[in-house]
Amino acid sequence: MSSSTSQDSTADDRPLVILQPAPQRSERIFTASARMELESSFRVVDLEDDDDPASFEAALPEAFAIIGQPELPAARLARATRLRAICNVEGNFFPNVDYPAAFARGIHVLGCGPAYAQAVAEFALGLALDLCRGISREDRAFRSGTERYVSAGNTDAILLRGARVGLIGYGNLGRALRPLLDAFDVDLRVYDPWLPDRALADWGLVPASLEELLRRSQVVFMLATVTADSEHLLGAGELAMLSDNARLVLVSRAAVVDYDALWAEQVAGRILAGVDVWPLEPVPADDPYRRLDNLVFSGHRAGGIPQAFQQIGDMVVDDLRQLARGLPPVRMQAAAPELVGRYRNRPVT
Amino acid sequence: MSSSTSQDSTADDRPLVILQPAPQRSERIFTASARMELESSFRVVDLEDDDDPASFEAALPEAFAIIGQPELPAARLARATRLRAICNVEGNFFPNVDYPAAFARGIHVLGCGPAYAQAVAEFALGLALDLCRGISREDRAFRSGTERYVSAGNTDAILLRGARVGLIGYGNLGRALRPLLDAFDVDLRVYDPWLPDRALADWGLVPASLEELLRRSQVVFMLATVTADSEHLLGAGELAMLSDNARLVLVSRAAVVDYDALWAEQVAGRILAGVDVWPLEPVPADDPYRRLDNLVFSGHRAGGIPQAFQQIGDMVVDDLRQLARGLPPVRMQAAAPELVGRYRNRPVT
Amino acid sequence: MSSSTSQDSTADDRPLVILQPAPQRSERIFTASARMELESSFRVVDLEDDDDPASFEAALPEAFAIIGQPELPAARLARATRLRAICNVEGNFFPNVDYPAAFARGIHVLGCGPAYAQAVAEFALGLALDLCRGISREDRAFRSGTERYVSAGNTDAILLRGARVGLIGYGNLGRALRPLLDAFDVDLRVYDPWLPDRALADWGLVPASLEELLRRSQVVFMLATVTADSEHLLGAGELAMLSDNARLVLVSRAAVVDYDALWAEQVAGRILAGVDVWPLEPVPADDPYRRLDNLVFSGHRAGGIPQAFQQIGDMVVDDLRQLARGLPPVRMQAAAPELVGRYRNRPVT
Amino acid sequence: MSSSTSQDSTADDRPLVILQPAPQRSERIFTASARMELESSFRVVDLEDDDDPASFEAALPEAFAIIGQPELPAARLARATRLRAICNVEGNFFPNVDYPAAFARGIHVLGCGPAYAQAVAEFALGLALDLCRGISREDRAFRSGTERYVSAGNTDAILLRGARVGLIGYGNLGRALRPLLDAFDVDLRVYDPWLPDRALADWGLVPASLEELLRRSQVVFMLATVTADSEHLLGAGELAMLSDNARLVLVSRAAVVDYDALWAEQVAGRILAGVDVWPLEPVPADDPYRRLDNLVFSGHRAGGIPQAFQQIGDMVVDDLRQLARGLPPVRMQAAAPELVGRYRNRPVT
Repeated sequence: MSSSTSQDSTADDRPLVILQPAPQRSERIFTASARMELESSFRVVDLEDDDDPASFEAALPEAFAIIGQPELPAARLARATRLRAICNVEGNFFPNVDYPAAFARGIHVLGCGPAYAQAVAEFALGLALDLCRGISREDRAFRSGTERYVSAGNTDAILLRGARVGLIGYGNLGRALRPLLDAFDVDLRVYDPWLPDRALADWGLVPASLEELLRRSQVVFMLATVTADSEHLLGAGELAMLSDNARLVLVSRAAVVDYDALWAEQVAGRILAGVDVWPLEPVPADDPYRRLDNLVFSGHRAGGIPQAFQQIGDMVVDDLRQLARGLPPVRMQAAAPELVGRYRNRPVT
Repeated sequence: MSSSTSQDSTADDRPLVILQPAPQRSERIFTASARMELESSFRVVDLEDDDDPASFEAALPEAFAIIGQPELPAARLARATRLRAICNVEGNFFPNVDYPAAFARGIHVLGCGPAYAQAVAEFALGLALDLCRGISREDRAFRSGTERYVSAGNTDAILLRGARVGLIGYGNLGRALRPLLDAFDVDLRVYDPWLPDRALADWGLVPASLEELLRRSQVVFMLATVTADSEHLLGAGELAMLSDNARLVLVSRAAVVDYDALWAEQVAGRILAGVDVWPLEPVPADDPYRRLDNLVFSGHRAGGIPQAFQQIGDMVVDDLRQLARGLPPVRMQAAAPELVGRYRNRPVT
Repeated sequence: MSSSTSQDSTADDRPLVILQPAPQRSERIFTASARMELESSFRVVDLEDDDDPASFEAALPEAFAIIGQPELPAARLARATRLRAICNVEGNFFPNVDYPAAFARGIHVLGCGPAYAQAVAEFALGLALDLCRGISREDRAFRSGTERYVSAGNTDAILLRGARVGLIGYGNLGRALRPLLDAFDVDLRVYDPWLPDRALADWGLVPASLEELLRRSQVVFMLATVTADSEHLLGAGELAMLSDNARLVLVSRAAVVDYDALWAEQVAGRILAGVDVWPLEPVPADDPYRRLDNLVFSGHRAGGIPQAFQQIGDMVVDDLRQLARGLPPVRMQAAAPELVGRYRNRPVT
Repeated sequence: MSSSTSQDSTADDRPLVILQPAPQRSERIFTASARMELESSFRVVDLEDDDDPASFEAALPEAFAIIGQPELPAARLARATRLRAICNVEGNFFPNVDYPAAFARGIHVLGCGPAYAQAVAEFALGLALDLCRGISREDRAFRSGTERYVSAGNTDAILLRGARVGLIGYGNLGRALRPLLDAFDVDLRVYDPWLPDRALADWGLVPASLEELLRRSQVVFMLATVTADSEHLLGAGELAMLSDNARLVLVSRAAVVDYDALWAEQVAGRILAGVDVWPLEPVPADDPYRRLDNLVFSGHRAGGIPQAFQQIGDMVVDDLRQLARGLPPVRMQAAAPELVGRYRNRPVT
């Protein structure tokens, strides 16, 4: 354990912040300049490489904020009498925090999900354009000397402009993807059972049932998070509703799709898919999926790019400074008490 | 030769249109409904499968318009006393028309370039996103069992949002690409020696010299057409100005780039490129390019998709109807007398 | 007091909602259809015309939500053991609620501010265009027979396109105004001491100090709310920083401007202003302001239009239904614990 | 007559430009810097204050371009053997040019209409917002001490957001207005008999018949130019189709509306209007129109603001330089041979 300051701590009235970001790495999320900002505004107790619980316990009573996702049961929270914020820098809210106790104390429980949204949205659009135009498929053909020129390679190509597009889930990812799709004047439908139709309409969107969305869309973006309700949201029945040659982009969580059913549709050559998340990661070496031609493969890479990680650190510093000034956080995402216990996401390893 | 109508032609006062679209195919550019519109408004002399010059000559004196790109030297134009429009449906203006003679007569010389622009713009963006995020590269890795997960596969990934982007050429392609890029709030520069700086500024763009653009951009779109001035516009010197890891998207014409110099930069692993056009098409089977890893290959497929071709037919019908009503054409692109003789594009075969 | 249902209340498990909207009127905020939705989902205890505290007290123990802004000191909240939401339908958070007690209980304290934002933004833009082009001034001239034609009436007219524009405050109003201004490609600066610079930058905005904003802007929108810190935010010194012929639009709260100083600038003919809010409303009949020619007058009309009021009712119904389904509210604005005690807004009478 | 250069004219190979802008004034359209650019690239024969036809005739044989709208019958054009461009800087094409002769010679006939479009669009939007929100009406009330506060003054106020809006005519003005309206997510219909429906659809617009547009719209923008076909396009019958409380914005030409019929609708209090153009200008002092309360008056001020005039000069310089470099003009509007003879606009005096 190292403290970030050599000053006499009794004279240092900067708020104390515990930094224990594992499995996240602090040098990945904090640029040099963000780290300097953090250190200048706060006494940072850096526990990144110190997993002795005693160190954590020692810092807890004075902690103004915690950066990371350590265990925070009621007993620990009770000792953290000055705690104002818990900043999750991994991306998922896990059941290792006594959220009701935190909310009752007015402690801000903040997530870094928005930091990944732009990266995921751009990747999702990249997959969609690949599927609409056969970019990686024809690149493979070129490398094997079987490329087709001009219209011969374009028989199933479609414009995204004006296409019928569906978004399943309209949270951070959908909101980041939406302006990108607007530039294509797509004919958009949104399914999100957590949002009232009038909210979507007020944001200029057209709500749809899942079935309507699946049946009409040429391009479907699966952006839903995992809860007990959304597991296998796309099962065999739902996938069968997709029209022939529909393009399906999966960039949220594997658990929302029945991969056996997806496999069947793919083997049948009925739909095209871009898949970034997998039921088992790494995908087994002999997984038959690896032979599919109408699939664009990606290894859980949609969100975790350097700029996204650095965005997390910037957000943390900004919001901790807001709180230290008596202002509300504005950059990280506040956990909703109604939802925080529902997520079934697993940590990315 | 077949006439589209069984009516007594002496009583039929619909304007006569010669259809000789080769190498374009009429069923590719006209949907059933567009063809019906064409036939209902005009007497169509269909010479698609009739290359007897006598047929063409016979129809010429009455022709109101020609759909296609046949030879039209001064002598032929002189006989076409009623001619109002020449509708090129291939995409390039060739030197087989006496353009000055046509312009002196007020004959509209119309091109179908705008029909391809959206398709090319979407493809170019797809290539750019692929290069920014390694989409096809990691898809290949997945298929060979060497995929990398999460941040391990993202070390060189960048957001398009906020990226420094340069457009070389701001014609139909640039105008179609621009709103797509605007959605990413890119930091855009444009080089186009055919446009005054103030015109670009008035359209909300920042003009730049070619050198400034190349040196500062993380993503460069080559969108220029070929003229005597633009051949090898990107030579060894210019390519050397690109910063390391710059992404270069080539979707206009091969002649504007020195491919030997490009090859050298690629082999050095200094830049990434998405290439749709080639000095020789098809690319020779043993071309060493085919082994490059930092290149996304495409076989001249950016523009020629079914929806683009059908757009051509719609445009032709719309503009011929405009002219028949005494109104100016509004959908095809009027050839500029100053430019039409400068193009060095070859037909796509 | 009337209950909305004839059912046996012991068998009715719909959540109970107390409706006491004064000074707001329920028929103004609920369309017939929204009212029907409210009644179908909730047992509504309608106290709009019942100011007997006993009625309120009787309903309180069972209340799931309160629509209105009644007194809610700790004692009352303590009896409201089932309370989940307090829906303010007036627009300002007053100090008549024990907010800490509500937050400690996880009760949602929701405001209707967003319902007015679009109306205010459109009005503010209307005032700005009026000031840029002399719309009401020349309309008056026309009515008095002294109108000027063409350029004679346009000597001080400016385009909004490309103009240097400043927003003071970037909350609901600024966010609603921003896309309207974006359509004009304005050169925008934002001053908001409650937001970190990086947040503004991430939203594509350029932060500025108040002084820089005032000195450079041709058009300034005052959109800040009133707190102890923002009273007379624009005093004599700040107004003097405005350039000659600057246009100032005041649509938030009168207390943020020193009207004596504004009056001096206006009398001097140095700036133009559009003013919707006044230190005293109604403005005294003999107020010398009424004679100013370079001012567009409005009687606190920016937000309170029929569609804005009806938006409130829709939002209330949507969010109460969300809460009844165990989901977070998404349409009203959650009060920030850090801010709710700072506002100094008075109710509009 | 003065020549702009002291150089020996036999050695000066800069193209010669005749400047005779009346009734436009050169100092109004050329900034100092644009004038300097003009002088540096061209030999300017300045005939602004020289109406001796001999001066004009003397310069004609060498003239590369003419800036202004002088008489150019066939005989004069025949003597202007080097003429490449006629740059109209007034705004209307008059019948004082032998257009067919010019077109046969490939002389560019260029208009400055686009220079006014942004100014008109902003003004039109300002009028629309005024009519939607009663801005000038309530400003008048305030000045007479009869202002109404909050909702009392807003009974007929409507949002522009989501409103049903119609554009009559989709030329320069409509194209400039469209992005401003898009920011309000209006429900837009366009009527323009000079454009094919598919062109409008391709630009993302919904075409409508005039009747449908008038019956459904809450806000109608009259943007059509005058031709034999469009005189009194809005007559009594058409105005009667407008729904009660419709807002009508007239900013193109008076001749397209039957003002007697408009007067009747206004007197009946059935519609609101913002009117910038008048059958007789100046409007007679005793015109009963001047007493109408549901009208916003303006004296032909929509387009002629300083920035618009200066835009003309910039466009002229840019396009003449383009032509001198052998490139097509890109900023002014090329006269369409099909349309140039149809306009019935009168010069603004």
